[in-house]
Amino acid sequence: MTQKTGNPVELVTYTLDEVHSLCFRILTQHGLSESQAEAMSKVLTAGERDECRSHGVYRIPGCLKTVKSPKFLPDALPEVSSSKGPVLRVDAKYGFSCLALEMATPELVARTNEFGLSALVINNCFHTSALWYEVEELAKHDLVSLALGPSLRSVAPAGGVKPLFGTNPMAFGWPRPSGDPYVFDFATSEVARGEIELHRQNAKAMPLGWAIDKNGDPTTDPVAGLAGAMLTFGGHKGSAISTMIELLAGPLINDMMS
Amino acid sequence: MTQKTGNPVELVTYTLDEVHSLCFRILTQHGLSESQAEAMSKVLTAGERDECRSHGVYRIPGCLKTVKSPKFLPDALPEVSSSKGPVLRVDAKYGFSCLALEMATPELVARTNEFGLSALVINNCFHTSALWYEVEELAKHDLVSLALGPSLRSVAPAGGVKPLFGTNPMAFGWPRPSGDPYVFDFATSEVARGEIELHRQNAKAMPLGWAIDKNGDPTTDPVAGLAGAMLTFGGHKGSAISTMIELLAGPLINDMMS
Repeated sequence: MTQKTGNPVELVTYTLDEVHSLCFRILTQHGLSESQAEAMSKVLTAGERDECRSHGVYRIPGCLKTVKSPKFLPDALPEVSSSKGPVLRVDAKYGFSCLALEMATPELVARTNEFGLSALVINNCFHTSALWYEVEELAKHDLVSLALGPSLRSVAPAGGVKPLFGTNPMAFGWPRPSGDPYVFDFATSEVARGEIELHRQNAKAMPLGWAIDKNGDPTTDPVAGLAGAMLTFGGHKGSAISTMIELLAGPLINDMMS
Repeated sequence: MTQKTGNPVELVTYTLDEVHSLCFRILTQHGLSESQAEAMSKVLTAGERDECRSHGVYRIPGCLKTVKSPKFLPDALPEVSSSKGPVLRVDAKYGFSCLALEMATPELVARTNEFGLSALVINNCFHTSALWYEVEELAKHDLVSLALGPSLRSVAPAGGVKPLFGTNPMAFGWPRPSGDPYVFDFATSEVARGEIELHRQNAKAMPLGWAIDKNGDPTTDPVAGLAGAMLTFGGHKGSAISTMIELLAGPLINDMMS
C-alpha cells in the first residue's frame, strides 16, 4: 500500500503483513473483539493485495462507523446452526458477516460435498466488505459459489424515481485446476457511490446513466445525483437482477430488504 | 392470436385452445411424439397468452428445424434419475427440455420441500422455448426458482471480437400470496437476434451497442452485425453474468458450452 500525505508528498510503503497489523490494531482499538477484527482485517488486506483500493484500508472509516451503530455488537460471536441438511444457517449476532462466513465455512464445505449443493444463510449481520474474498475462500475448497447481498437503499429501479434497492452486489467464484479461480464481484448499480462522490469532490460532471435527480430526471450533476438516486447497470435487466438479490438475500431468508 | 396474410389483409383470430391444437397438430405432423408435442405446445401457447410473440407460434419453424437436427430424437422419453438428495438429474434423451422439466417437476417439488433447496439438472436436451414458463410452473408449487441455459454461440464477451457466448437467458420466479408471481426472463445479449434481423429486413440502422462487425468494431449496420457478433447487455457486468451461466449450465453439469 502506498499512502500520500501532506506536502511535500511523503510515500509510505507497507507490506501486506503490515497492512493486516494496521487494520487489526485500529479495529481492536475501536472496540472490536479480536476474532471480529481478525476476520475483517483479512478481507481488507485482500483488497490491498488485489489492488482494489475501494475495498482495502479505505473501508476502515466505514467499518468504524458501522461499529458505532446502536445495533452493532463489537464482540459478536456468530452461532452456526446445528440443524442438518443442505441449508446451513448462521446467526451473525449483529457483528460483521466475514467472521460468520469464516466460522461456517468448514460445515458449508462438508455439506456441499455431502449433498452436491448447499446454501449458507447469514442472518443478523453487517456487511461492509468485499464479496469476492468470500467466493475466493470457497474456491480454495474446490467449490463453485455465488454470493448475494442487499445493502442500504440508494438505487432506483428502472423507471423508478426514488431509491429502493441497495447497490446489491453479487460475486461468483469458479475454481480452476491450476492457478487462481475465475472470480467476479460487482455492484448492480451502474457505478459505486464512491465514483459519484469523487466527481463531486472534483466538481466534475458525471456521465448520463449513473444517477437521477430528486425528481427522477437524468442528471450529470453529481450533487443532484447524490440527492436523488443511483441507477442500476444494464437498464431494466440489471434492475431485475437487483430485485432478485433483494428477494433471495432478504425475505427468502427472513431478513431485511435494502 | 391474430394472423395477417396476403392482400387484402385477412385477420384470423384463434382462441388459446385453438393455438394449442394448431401447435400440437403441426408438431406431431412433423414427427414429434405426442408427449413431446404436448409439452412444447403448452409453452408456445403461453407465449401467445402473454403476448410475447417472439416465443409463441413464431417459434414453430425454429422447433421444426431442431426436430430435423441429426442429434434430435423426436420421440425422446426423458428419464428422471432415481438417485436421492437435493440434486435431481433428468436425461432429456436429446428431445426438448420442456417435457423433461414437466416430468421432473413433481420430484423436484418434493425434494425442495424436503431439503429446503434443490437443483434440477437437465442433460442432453434441446431448448428453444421460453424460460419464464418454467419458473411460472414452479411458482404454482410455491417455489422460488432461477432458470439458466446456454445456447448457440452468437455473442462476444466484453472486449472480445468473436462470438463465444450464447444469448444465455436467465429467468427468475417468485410466488406471491395472491395473484401472479413476480417473474423475469431475458437474454443476456443486449437484444434478441430477431431484433437485429428485423432491422436488416427493414434496412434500418441499429443503435450502437447491439453488435460488432467481423473485425470487432462497433457497428450500426445490421448486416455487418449479423456477420460479426452480438454484444451482452450491461457491458462487462452483463458479460460476467453470461460467463456464469455458461459455467453453471455447462461444465458444472457435464454438459456443453455455447
